[in-house]
Amino acid sequence: MGVEFLTGKIDLRSDTVTKPTEEMRKAMYEAEVGDDVYGEDPTVLRLEELAAELLGKEAALFVTSGTQGNQAGIATHASTGEEVIVEAQAHVFYYEAAAISVFAGAQVRQIPTDNGIMTPDQIRRAIRSKDVHQPRTALIAVENTHNRAGGTVWPLEDLAAVGELARRSGIPLHMDGARVFNAAAALGVPVRDVVEHVDTVSICLSKGLCAPVGSVLVGPRDFIERARQWRKRMGGGMRQAGVIAAPGIIALTKMVDRLAEDHHNARYLAEQLASMNGITVALDKVQTNIVIADIGNSGIEVPEFVRELAAEGVLASSFGETLVRFVTHHDVSRADIEKAVDAVQRVLHGARVH
Amino acid sequence: MGVEFLTGKIDLRSDTVTKPTEEMRKAMYEAEVGDDVYGEDPTVLRLEELAAELLGKEAALFVTSGTQGNQAGIATHASTGEEVIVEAQAHVFYYEAAAISVFAGAQVRQIPTDNGIMTPDQIRRAIRSKDVHQPRTALIAVENTHNRAGGTVWPLEDLAAVGELARRSGIPLHMDGARVFNAAAALGVPVRDVVEHVDTVSICLSKGLCAPVGSVLVGPRDFIERARQWRKRMGGGMRQAGVIAAPGIIALTKMVDRLAEDHHNARYLAEQLASMNGITVALDKVQTNIVIADIGNSGIEVPEFVRELAAEGVLASSFGETLVRFVTHHDVSRADIEKAVDAVQRVLHGARVH
Amino acid sequence: MGVEFLTGKIDLRSDTVTKPTEEMRKAMYEAEVGDDVYGEDPTVLRLEELAAELLGKEAALFVTSGTQGNQAGIATHASTGEEVIVEAQAHVFYYEAAAISVFAGAQVRQIPTDNGIMTPDQIRRAIRSKDVHQPRTALIAVENTHNRAGGTVWPLEDLAAVGELARRSGIPLHMDGARVFNAAAALGVPVRDVVEHVDTVSICLSKGLCAPVGSVLVGPRDFIERARQWRKRMGGGMRQAGVIAAPGIIALTKMVDRLAEDHHNARYLAEQLASMNGITVALDKVQTNIVIADIGNSGIEVPEFVRELAAEGVLASSFGETLVRFVTHHDVSRADIEKAVDAVQRVLHGARVH
Amino acid sequence: MGVEFLTGKIDLRSDTVTKPTEEMRKAMYEAEVGDDVYGEDPTVLRLEELAAELLGKEAALFVTSGTQGNQAGIATHASTGEEVIVEAQAHVFYYEAAAISVFAGAQVRQIPTDNGIMTPDQIRRAIRSKDVHQPRTALIAVENTHNRAGGTVWPLEDLAAVGELARRSGIPLHMDGARVFNAAAALGVPVRDVVEHVDTVSICLSKGLCAPVGSVLVGPRDFIERARQWRKRMGGGMRQAGVIAAPGIIALTKMVDRLAEDHHNARYLAEQLASMNGITVALDKVQTNIVIADIGNSGIEVPEFVRELAAEGVLASSFGETLVRFVTHHDVSRADIEKAVDAVQRVLHGARVH
Repeated sequence: MGVEFLTGKIDLRSDTVTKPTEEMRKAMYEAEVGDDVYGEDPTVLRLEELAAELLGKEAALFVTSGTQGNQAGIATHASTGEEVIVEAQAHVFYYEAAAISVFAGAQVRQIPTDNGIMTPDQIRRAIRSKDVHQPRTALIAVENTHNRAGGTVWPLEDLAAVGELARRSGIPLHMDGARVFNAAAALGVPVRDVVEHVDTVSICLSKGLCAPVGSVLVGPRDFIERARQWRKRMGGGMRQAGVIAAPGIIALTKMVDRLAEDHHNARYLAEQLASMNGITVALDKVQTNIVIADIGNSGIEVPEFVRELAAEGVLASSFGETLVRFVTHHDVSRADIEKAVDAVQRVLHGARVH
Repeated sequence: MGVEFLTGKIDLRSDTVTKPTEEMRKAMYEAEVGDDVYGEDPTVLRLEELAAELLGKEAALFVTSGTQGNQAGIATHASTGEEVIVEAQAHVFYYEAAAISVFAGAQVRQIPTDNGIMTPDQIRRAIRSKDVHQPRTALIAVENTHNRAGGTVWPLEDLAAVGELARRSGIPLHMDGARVFNAAAALGVPVRDVVEHVDTVSICLSKGLCAPVGSVLVGPRDFIERARQWRKRMGGGMRQAGVIAAPGIIALTKMVDRLAEDHHNARYLAEQLASMNGITVALDKVQTNIVIADIGNSGIEVPEFVRELAAEGVLASSFGETLVRFVTHHDVSRADIEKAVDAVQRVLHGARVH
Repeated sequence: MGVEFLTGKIDLRSDTVTKPTEEMRKAMYEAEVGDDVYGEDPTVLRLEELAAELLGKEAALFVTSGTQGNQAGIATHASTGEEVIVEAQAHVFYYEAAAISVFAGAQVRQIPTDNGIMTPDQIRRAIRSKDVHQPRTALIAVENTHNRAGGTVWPLEDLAAVGELARRSGIPLHMDGARVFNAAAALGVPVRDVVEHVDTVSICLSKGLCAPVGSVLVGPRDFIERARQWRKRMGGGMRQAGVIAAPGIIALTKMVDRLAEDHHNARYLAEQLASMNGITVALDKVQTNIVIADIGNSGIEVPEFVRELAAEGVLASSFGETLVRFVTHHDVSRADIEKAVDAVQRVLHGARVH
Repeated sequence: MGVEFLTGKIDLRSDTVTKPTEEMRKAMYEAEVGDDVYGEDPTVLRLEELAAELLGKEAALFVTSGTQGNQAGIATHASTGEEVIVEAQAHVFYYEAAAISVFAGAQVRQIPTDNGIMTPDQIRRAIRSKDVHQPRTALIAVENTHNRAGGTVWPLEDLAAVGELARRSGIPLHMDGARVFNAAAALGVPVRDVVEHVDTVSICLSKGLCAPVGSVLVGPRDFIERARQWRKRMGGGMRQAGVIAAPGIIALTKMVDRLAEDHHNARYLAEQLASMNGITVALDKVQTNIVIADIGNSGIEVPEFVRELAAEGVLASSFGETLVRFVTHHDVSRADIEKAVDAVQRVLHGARVH
């Protein structure tokens, strides 16, 4: 879509569209910088320390995106000819251009679930035997919140159980925590409690937290050292990266607490949509800032629905044959949500009167 | 297990244990040979021509194993960063040491089924959209008969439907035909009818067909030329390979017709096992030479069952938490099967009297 | 080295240490942004257009580093099992953590030279024959200026000759143009003349041109489209990337013309060093902003030399057993260079008096 | 070339063309076999034990070719993103279809030499520093005898020196020993002395030793266990492989001693060729069974020379722009060599009379 197209639209396609705040822009302007490839950018160092501290881990690595955080992490854990266990619609498998197989050279083992939450039993059965025919299971990766399941949150006891299985099996546990602060907000606990049982996490600064660019990979110190070479290889070694680390610091210190607001907006939107004829919403899965609407009974095809909704000033994402995804975030207010609800009504009504 | 251990045992672990016949040994002894890397081994050339002809395809490539046939084939079809659709327990994914991700650098997309037979609809939903986040779907691979599903046979109309979907989508279709002659025998059709709708097939000479070593990859001429480099890279370029191609020719010309006998033996064994207390067999899946027995209600754990059965002179394979696999083949007679049934009875009885 | 360590030092380790100018910081502050993964960041789009225009190519892709530009480019050109011809000390081979073999799965063929400039004849002899044993030659990559050779510039006629060979052989030609603006400045021609004979180029915004972060890959439109997926896979898909593209625009429009000044400073430094006892400099290779000093006859080992020079307030890089590299750039003035010369004198003198 | 073409020719293209002896054919016919994937083929086990014993190493693995032995070995030593040091024309780099980069995902570092023998100093300078930009040096691989250098033999003291460097650097040392028995014959020492300083070796049974198919990878027990999975992945897991291991046992026990005869024939051929107008032979490099003739001054192009020589009943290989390779072996007698000399004379004379 063209850039002009966006003007004045209520953009619910993703929380990645959030723009940097005025305070973030100022922080970029003023950032103290150095050459981060030499480990000399003080702002990057500060961000990394802060992230490690917040997550309760030893060390951290600033990377350019969630994909880079996940893939540098996974390739550090898993090697060529090994296997990585993930949920069947995990972002690292579904939306990262087959990177696990390209970089690590590892095979991805997919566990189907309804809600993004794998059971320890499912995982246990997927762990490989020692046998010349079978790849060694090198990693278990969970996603929290789980994007394609609709922003679902891993219950803490489930994470604890998977963590225990992983430890007992001698297999590391990675979390794609692109929206882990949403999970913490939904659970009402500090984020370090959410990641207590995983070895490594990748968090995003640029989704709900509004930083323009960047993610952080967090874990044990020696792991992070090894991941640093994967970052370099992938081209994530940046020079005066402090200019983008600076808004990242604001993201972590000032933007976390407001995520609950996005969740309220999502809840409201979900309930409104659920009440409409032709739309179904699995309300139990609306746990954070994502709403997935099934429009299978509306009489409208998804591409047409998305197009007509855009014409009404509201952007949403096609998310499957009958599914449309809405994501709430910092740049949409409750009033915007109300307008979005009206717009959906008009589109549905339009469909009926045709 | 030690080599001596095998003496006098009825070996139902796999049809891979079949030994070359006297006629095959003679053929090895007499084989006319040349340097096959230079394309000058007349016996290899004859085998390749014969396999292509039998399967109704343009060309063929002699390889050292089913794994090499599948993986040279898949790596010729799919490239780094692409995706290959397979059934969730396909041999190429489950038992080939993550080779698809190592060689092709491609991601494996797994479709869960009950019986190894994917529906066109499942496959259609798994084909990727053109999008920077998503790997291109480069290949669909089916397995016929399907080993882990218990030797199940793809109905011809299902293959036709998947073939049509593949063609319409511009995606090639590969068959792991390690036991495709068993499929043809079960269906009562020539093997070329079974592979009519697939672009490429890998067949095995060394399972039910009794050759000591070798498989053949079959497909379009230019595809086979490209696969030849993958074979070389994997170390499958052999020199005077005619000595093992010679028994392969006998496998294809003289051993196919007797597979029905293995199927009758498997059927008999399955029915006998199904009638025992503590054992369940999904009889509808016993379509060829494989019998999978669920001993979950026998009170015996699988490793113990396998061990005790071996002590009774019968070898079978552990195949999952409660599953034991038996495979019939050339080197076990109906009388052997009857002895095997008795041995299982004794093991079950032993369990009960403990 | 610690961050504090740098305060007040004259930093000649690399031109990567340049800091963003005030104008660049303002541009970041004010940048108009959008979600670049959706192709909606107007500042990124403007930078890409500008780079393509400047280089005389169809299209461009903003990436996070020179390594990412090169590797996304190379992996788009070359595939698994193919071969890439490079000079034996090319950055893409020497300093990019084996990325060509990891990402493309391609083998790197190294051509030894004295000065970084391969002859057409060397390249021609390295192009592979069509043969099952040999990888297909998929790409020739040149580096201009050549870092490890000391910032040497490819003569235009040599590039033309290699370009002709490449075209005639049907092999694409990539340029690692991390310092291609230095080459253009040294040759006194517009940069588009320098890249006329290559298909694709990766340029850096963050070296001599002072932008804090970023590079641009430039080439044919369909090539750039395919490279976009490699960028995504490597984690280079950033969101509101306009904040770092904005200083990149200034880099390309306002910082190019001043590179000649760096070259004069390098020349001056080189001549001063060459006149000192114990130091040798190949003055004919000092063509741009890099000076490589051989201190083999100084009686000091390289690590000690670098350490003592740092104690005297000047930073340089260890570059081999007897080699030290100095790089001039925006943030060192002629007066700084004079101080650096004095510091080297003191270090050499110190060595003699010990 | 067609198969018929070969009838009655003196084939000096390679020692790979040797055919199995009558004794080997008998051994195949009678071989005791089992399923080698289960480790139950007694003949394979015997061959592996014999090879380990002969080479003075702990364990061995039967593989289908020299390429598979080398590549399974290298991929077991080196991992994705690492580097392997080889001579610039090493077979593992030059003729194995880029397999090191495809399988291990490792980069190949090439050391140029005149005669295939790298000096410890060259290797030492190529070993990488610990640095995020640089791949870890994971392996040094030597080739003995060195094919493209003309069958040159590593002097034992040079191997000892490289072995010491490798140990001191903590880097394993692999030998491509496709013709290591020729090296031992030339040095007049047992083969175990030749491989004393290397960790792992791949030897060929099918070149000078005349077995129809197969090689053996030899090394420490745990290394061989890990290599076994690479063999499986590459499709080298064969079933009743005893049928080809049996002639391999004869190759190792009865064919080694006669290699000196091939060397005498090569020497004779080399001297005769060197005495002809228009042909140059570096006689100091004719150390084993390979003769490389430079026909640059003969007035004939290599393809034409090879073609005309074939018309005269003698087959040789094109080996570079002006180079032709002749290899002596079991299936060519001294009388054949004399005929070959006459044939070359006729071709040269024909060139002159045109």
